[in-house]
Amino acid sequence: MKFTHPFTLLCFIGLFLLGTSCENETVTNTTGEPNTNITPDTQEVAEYAMVIHGGAGTLRRADMTAEKDSMYRSALDSALTIGEQVLQSGGSAADAVEQTINYLENVPLFNAGKGAVFTAAGQHELDASFMDGATLNAGAVGGVTNVKHPITAARAVMENSEHVFLSGPGAEEFALEQGLETVPNSYFFTQHRYDALQEAQSAEAEAESERTSMLSPPFPDHKFGTVGCVALDKEGNIVAGTSTGGMTNKKYGRIGDSPIIGAGTYANNATCGVSCTGHGEFFIRYAVAYDVHAHMAYGKKTLANATEAVVMEKLVDAGGSGGLIALDKYGNIAMTYNTEGMYRGYVKPGERVVGIYKDE
Amino acid sequence: MKFTHPFTLLCFIGLFLLGTSCENETVTNTTGEPNTNITPDTQEVAEYAMVIHGGAGTLRRADMTAEKDSMYRSALDSALTIGEQVLQSGGSAADAVEQTINYLENVPLFNAGKGAVFTAAGQHELDASFMDGATLNAGAVGGVTNVKHPITAARAVMENSEHVFLSGPGAEEFALEQGLETVPNSYFFTQHRYDALQEAQSAEAEAESERTSMLSPPFPDHKFGTVGCVALDKEGNIVAGTSTGGMTNKKYGRIGDSPIIGAGTYANNATCGVSCTGHGEFFIRYAVAYDVHAHMAYGKKTLANATEAVVMEKLVDAGGSGGLIALDKYGNIAMTYNTEGMYRGYVKPGERVVGIYKDE
Repeated sequence: MKFTHPFTLLCFIGLFLLGTSCENETVTNTTGEPNTNITPDTQEVAEYAMVIHGGAGTLRRADMTAEKDSMYRSALDSALTIGEQVLQSGGSAADAVEQTINYLENVPLFNAGKGAVFTAAGQHELDASFMDGATLNAGAVGGVTNVKHPITAARAVMENSEHVFLSGPGAEEFALEQGLETVPNSYFFTQHRYDALQEAQSAEAEAESERTSMLSPPFPDHKFGTVGCVALDKEGNIVAGTSTGGMTNKKYGRIGDSPIIGAGTYANNATCGVSCTGHGEFFIRYAVAYDVHAHMAYGKKTLANATEAVVMEKLVDAGGSGGLIALDKYGNIAMTYNTEGMYRGYVKPGERVVGIYKDE
Repeated sequence: MKFTHPFTLLCFIGLFLLGTSCENETVTNTTGEPNTNITPDTQEVAEYAMVIHGGAGTLRRADMTAEKDSMYRSALDSALTIGEQVLQSGGSAADAVEQTINYLENVPLFNAGKGAVFTAAGQHELDASFMDGATLNAGAVGGVTNVKHPITAARAVMENSEHVFLSGPGAEEFALEQGLETVPNSYFFTQHRYDALQEAQSAEAEAESERTSMLSPPFPDHKFGTVGCVALDKEGNIVAGTSTGGMTNKKYGRIGDSPIIGAGTYANNATCGVSCTGHGEFFIRYAVAYDVHAHMAYGKKTLANATEAVVMEKLVDAGGSGGLIALDKYGNIAMTYNTEGMYRGYVKPGERVVGIYKDE
């Protein structure tokens, strides 16, 4: 755009005022309550910052035992410590994201790596994606069954292949050639995910007799549980990653948003990094991760207003449940979700927050 | 955004003037020549419109025989006739797109359906996606080997499943349940694609001895040849679809942009419909199809300026070869590519254009 037009100055004034007006909007969720999970945006640059999620869904305080609550908080806290150690010592955002997600992939509580949900065929198929905001390079794997750390495979696709997205046995062949750790599919087994499959399949059998259409999924909540991480390092680089076991009782080789750059994951040093979790079909149709960037890049929204517009307005209007974590180049943090809760946390120098429910 | 702010009127004036200023920009390609393939945008609504592509790449007049040139033009013209008949008689954009792409899938000249390229393993794996701009519903299939019309399978995923993206044998199982026509994988064989595989593999073997890195693909042009269609019907609905045989000598279960909503295909009645073709990895990383929409929705660009910004600026800067077709809600057409040529055409009431090279 060349600013040689005589009206340009007036345009600039108009845009500046509109921008100011946007930034002054109160950030509220759909129930009208202020969304306390969005830090007011500033332009002071944090030395480093990192934000994580462990899935969004129907997470109510009343449904949670004290023990389970504490296990989740402790895991989120440990994940933040791992990433912060990398960033504090001047390590790269890429290393922080990979190591943090590697840890979350090892924790059986989350639907990623060990603890991944079961497909309809009683298997585990894992997806992950990784994006570097400095180069806009990206990598992803879909439907891998024997790669211990899908996020590491996604990073290897980015760094050591000419491709962005590898799937199935081909992705596994690539991981093997890269010398990545492989495990038998049974490694991913956990009793609680097995029970969830049995439940989903019995309820599905009941529902099948009542409906002919597949348009209404009987268990929207069985889509949740993905993990993700976005980091800003001391060099100002933003990296985002997402890893998931997909959807309980998954059929037909369904691919969700997690391995899709622009849907589940996006990073761009000029604006923000984003990792999503939720009802993946909506996140693909609405290109959610890229949309946060686009609102900032073209709509001149702040991070808080961009994530709000996408998650609390666009997705809510469409009926798409879920949430996302994001940070911008200043280290402002957003943890925005339209569900009852989201396992989440962030860390900056001298600041650390871990949360699960909406009312905290 | 609530317009209760006292500066709102001024903002509107500023934005309106900026919008006007943008529309007056001259559309030029990177060499500074006017891009003759972009119709000047108007706000007169066409009764209907449709635009197609059959792939972008190193298409030079000097390299083409008169016979081959005429075969391609005739196929593109027939495709436009099929779609126009649907739209003229009041049919839906969805039917126009599906039937037009079904025809292109049957023509062995194009890398979609019959005529699809070979994978490294000597097989054919086909991808397609379909999006409805009225509902923002979408469907896609990846890596199917026995579905005669992948675009029809993509539409079936959209209309008859709760999912957006199905892959591999699961997607084939779904297509079979939907009663779609299946064929043996050998149906997709054509001699010229087989020869292309042999060439690619010999050259790869030579190159292998010279390089250790996989970062520079030896045959960028072997990624091209996808088909796509975007239609605007008399009801004002926009639908977009893309179908491809992927990349010659494809390995590792590589997934390109064609089955990815937001990368290879996007449609939104509020702005535009888009179908892409080119070096898919770049189209995923830059969320190309969605980016055209975002430039229009948030950046208030016209269709011509939006496609120009994405294909001729962003992709050129990144080194991403390819192109796209798009139309907006007024029926303005864009056929924008940064390669030597693109098989392309569009039709509106009383207007029909078919082209291959840059200089026409």
